[in-house]
Amino acid sequence: MKEINIGILGLGTVGTGIAKILLENESLITSRLGAKLILKRAADLDLQRDRGITFKDGVLTTDPFEIVDDPDIEIILEMIGGETIAYDLILKSIDNGKHVVTANKALLASQGNLLFKAAAAKGVTIAFEPSVAGCMPIIKTLRETLVANHIQSICGILNGTCNYILSKITDEGVSFESALAGAQAEGFAEADPTLDIEGFDTAHKLAILSSIAFGMEINLKDIYVEGITKITPMDIDFADQYGYKIKLLAITKFAGESVEARVHPTMIPLSNPLSNVNGSLNAVTISGDAVGDMMLYGHGAGMMPTASAAISDIVDISRALLNKSVSRVPMLSFQTENIRNIPIHPIDEISSIYYFRFSALDQPGVLSKISGILGDHDISIKSVHQTEQKLNGAVPIFMLTHQAREAQVKKALAKIASLEVIADEPLPIRIEG
Amino acid sequence: MKEINIGILGLGTVGTGIAKILLENESLITSRLGAKLILKRAADLDLQRDRGITFKDGVLTTDPFEIVDDPDIEIILEMIGGETIAYDLILKSIDNGKHVVTANKALLASQGNLLFKAAAAKGVTIAFEPSVAGCMPIIKTLRETLVANHIQSICGILNGTCNYILSKITDEGVSFESALAGAQAEGFAEADPTLDIEGFDTAHKLAILSSIAFGMEINLKDIYVEGITKITPMDIDFADQYGYKIKLLAITKFAGESVEARVHPTMIPLSNPLSNVNGSLNAVTISGDAVGDMMLYGHGAGMMPTASAAISDIVDISRALLNKSVSRVPMLSFQTENIRNIPIHPIDEISSIYYFRFSALDQPGVLSKISGILGDHDISIKSVHQTEQKLNGAVPIFMLTHQAREAQVKKALAKIASLEVIADEPLPIRIEG
Repeated sequence: MKEINIGILGLGTVGTGIAKILLENESLITSRLGAKLILKRAADLDLQRDRGITFKDGVLTTDPFEIVDDPDIEIILEMIGGETIAYDLILKSIDNGKHVVTANKALLASQGNLLFKAAAAKGVTIAFEPSVAGCMPIIKTLRETLVANHIQSICGILNGTCNYILSKITDEGVSFESALAGAQAEGFAEADPTLDIEGFDTAHKLAILSSIAFGMEINLKDIYVEGITKITPMDIDFADQYGYKIKLLAITKFAGESVEARVHPTMIPLSNPLSNVNGSLNAVTISGDAVGDMMLYGHGAGMMPTASAAISDIVDISRALLNKSVSRVPMLSFQTENIRNIPIHPIDEISSIYYFRFSALDQPGVLSKISGILGDHDISIKSVHQTEQKLNGAVPIFMLTHQAREAQVKKALAKIASLEVIADEPLPIRIEG
Repeated sequence: MKEINIGILGLGTVGTGIAKILLENESLITSRLGAKLILKRAADLDLQRDRGITFKDGVLTTDPFEIVDDPDIEIILEMIGGETIAYDLILKSIDNGKHVVTANKALLASQGNLLFKAAAAKGVTIAFEPSVAGCMPIIKTLRETLVANHIQSICGILNGTCNYILSKITDEGVSFESALAGAQAEGFAEADPTLDIEGFDTAHKLAILSSIAFGMEINLKDIYVEGITKITPMDIDFADQYGYKIKLLAITKFAGESVEARVHPTMIPLSNPLSNVNGSLNAVTISGDAVGDMMLYGHGAGMMPTASAAISDIVDISRALLNKSVSRVPMLSFQTENIRNIPIHPIDEISSIYYFRFSALDQPGVLSKISGILGDHDISIKSVHQTEQKLNGAVPIFMLTHQAREAQVKKALAKIASLEVIADEPLPIRIEG
């Protein structure tokens, strides 16, 4: 039986999960693939830690370059993360004619255009199913299942940490800070949670998805990103009362010669299936001209779900190697010559309906001042809500608008913020259907 | 640019959808595939009907055998349905060395073992993504994405007609008969709805899914099937009050040396994401040892969603043809020599928790008689509920049980049904977590 040699760079959570599944489910994978996947080498700086795996003699090394230079290894799993050594190792692997599987969304979002070109020039593949939405086949679905569809939009909950925190605020009414601390205590958030809670991790994933959905070059820098740190239990209470949930969404929409691509907290109605995605789970809805709306839902992170996605890529590459058909599916979904540089709309140019929370001094005439400024900026108010609650002595005023332009909203809110009767920065949250 | 010739047999709803997408989205598909898909021939008995498509001269014929005998055509789309002429046409296509895409779950469920063997012997592929769950990539996900997972169970809403009817009873409180008539008027149910409402269509799909999930031969005849015709608004009201929904589920579970495979109305708690799948939508949850639970959700039928799935299969085969790698993924997920004849449990041997609805005369001592018989059969009652409502002069009694054996339940309900105080056949509904 044919054997295919694999090398893993990095035995962190996902790398360890891959090694575990390759060893524990070996006969299952062989019974489907018809060939053996051999874990020939694995590199990590820390070889002392007990990972619950018995590696054969000679498999482990502290030097990942030994692995990418091993002529017997055909597939490299880059599971180190980050943008420095991982970049060098992937380029070296490509240079050595090896195929690469990576979960490194940060690197693909920033250096993907270059890496995919290098791989194509060398006739090797970079596979990246584990980089977005964990176990869910979002890359395969966009590239293969929806091949006959013009993708119209993608909307996803792509960061388990943020979804866990927002669910905790919703369920327990605690503050953002306390929910974050809870998430950290339970292992759902990193010690430095910036990448997650500020929306950057979600943006990395969105940059990849937009590219393969629309046939555009990867463009991270023009994606609008706003995190979840300003969301309070008051906002979530309001949402709850009026039939909404607040989720950190990655949104991309095709608009002819440009696309929208943005990451921000979003109010969605309970009729939207994403509103039922709670805790650390992820989900992605995709709209295509033939399929209408479809959704994938499951574990977007974690050792075994992400490792499962990585092995589906290993098997895909192995099948290609066994059949000598390595470039069967284009890495970025479209044939290289059809990938265009489609611009992303500046966020100022989008239209949306909005939720606003104002914090005002309890004085007569406040509402008239706020609504006057909104009117001056062509923002029409759908409803106004006030409660008895006070926050730091100020009274919260909630509003829902009709469709308005982002640029006008920014100007109006800045003007309102400068009013003497306004106690705190106004908070806008965009609403999606 | 390389061209691949395609022939469609049957220009009904799905066949017409495929032709439409091939023509309308031609340049999109080419920009992804890197080759042209040419609709060379299409057969239908009715060539007069306006399908909103301009076919080139010479494409249409009334004789499907002309197409399967055309030496220029490499891929045949069997979109006729049924088990007679479709069977002959698929066998002839295979015999002529052509690849086949089919949405014909009834045929695959009954004759699949034979057809897949014939295709393997000839070195051609039968692709069948459109046969289950419309646009959703359930076949691809089981065969490719979850390749590293022992599949533990699959649970799905796979019939849009039944889900539409159950949603209508839930939302409008109407009877089954009235909901069915509504579904027929709105085009969501056939004039003869038997295949759908009795659960057979769902069973066909489950036979296919169980096979590729577990590596077993296709086995339709041992699947337990129960339709939705006995469900009343009362059952749905009860479910609603106690936090459940009633759905027609296809359930298959791996149990070591055998599997469960059954189709029946099922109560599921609101925390189960399938409970939120309403109207004609479909959804499938899959549990794997690495991925945990994941779900696919979308349009399970209809012209364009099903056509989209068919074209994903055409493109997969085309990619294989372009790369000369036709047997890249085994048709039934496992290498032929690893496909076993795994038996399906008789339904009598399963355990479940149950909802029972009894219809009893309004007399003292009824509850004691019923609970006595249940106790004699080792069925322990979790709760009993009675309402003021009456149905044909009788009083409904609702019960929820703890885990019980199906064989015991059948015996107990038969005994209870024979009591003089019981006015109507007792209705059991199995409950899944």
